[in-house]
Amino acid sequence: MTFRPAGRADVPAILHLLADDDIARSRGFGVVPEEVDAATWAAFEAIDADPNNELIVAADDEVIATCQLTFTPGLSRGGAWRMTIEAVRVRADRRSAGLGKKLMAYAMDRALDRGCRIVQLTTDKRRIDAHRFYEALGFVASHEGMKLTL
Amino acid sequence: MTFRPAGRADVPAILHLLADDDIARSRGFGVVPEEVDAATWAAFEAIDADPNNELIVAADDEVIATCQLTFTPGLSRGGAWRMTIEAVRVRADRRSAGLGKKLMAYAMDRALDRGCRIVQLTTDKRRIDAHRFYEALGFVASHEGMKLTL
Repeated sequence: MTFRPAGRADVPAILHLLADDDIARSRGFGVVPEEVDAATWAAFEAIDADPNNELIVAADDEVIATCQLTFTPGLSRGGAWRMTIEAVRVRADRRSAGLGKKLMAYAMDRALDRGCRIVQLTTDKRRIDAHRFYEALGFVASHEGMKLTL
Repeated sequence: MTFRPAGRADVPAILHLLADDDIARSRGFGVVPEEVDAATWAAFEAIDADPNNELIVAADDEVIATCQLTFTPGLSRGGAWRMTIEAVRVRADRRSAGLGKKLMAYAMDRALDRGCRIVQLTTDKRRIDAHRFYEALGFVASHEGMKLTL
């Protein structure tokens, strides 16, 4: 099992991980198009070119988990950098085997490497299991996560 | 009143806005040092150099409000860009005059200019007035905002 930045060849597998999710389905993004579209490739290129964004995969023979890390500088808390974790997914047939925990351990190492003093994420209020998972890692649900779709 | 990206000269005023806040005080960041320290200048330079981060101020003769906007590409939702709003502050003596609303209108315009399809923020669960403010703008508190201090 390796944890590494995603390459172009990983994109279709990542899209399948993102789509295989009840909440993604409820938002109308439950089906992966046969061919990756231009907007998605552009998003991959933008992430890949940005030193403050890392798209991560966990892979053995296949890609089985993913997350995206964003590193943000800020003036708050004495000029602290923060790391935001988005789009965390573990393949359905590989859950409950500690893989999510290993993925988060990799992410925390990246936060330390980058000198971050805060790690943050938002998780849909319906994902009760996810809340328990993150709380066990030390996250505190201190904030409301508010979203506006344009 | 103008809304614009912050310059170096605005940093001390922004730090005062960030510090004059009960929750910042409770975290130990309620006092602004007489001289801006190196870590804070480095954070300002990092924001200023990053096309995906914008530190915004509202100013007439003085800086009276601020927020930070982060633009993040992602593979979810068809390759949608998202805008994250952090560190929103309006100076205490200028609140309840519609300034926060104008600042958010400026932020929304930036989201549209950048082609974002989601705008997101987290707000401390103790900031009840802020929740009402954002809900009136169309934000939905659909997520838990989880934080881990390293």
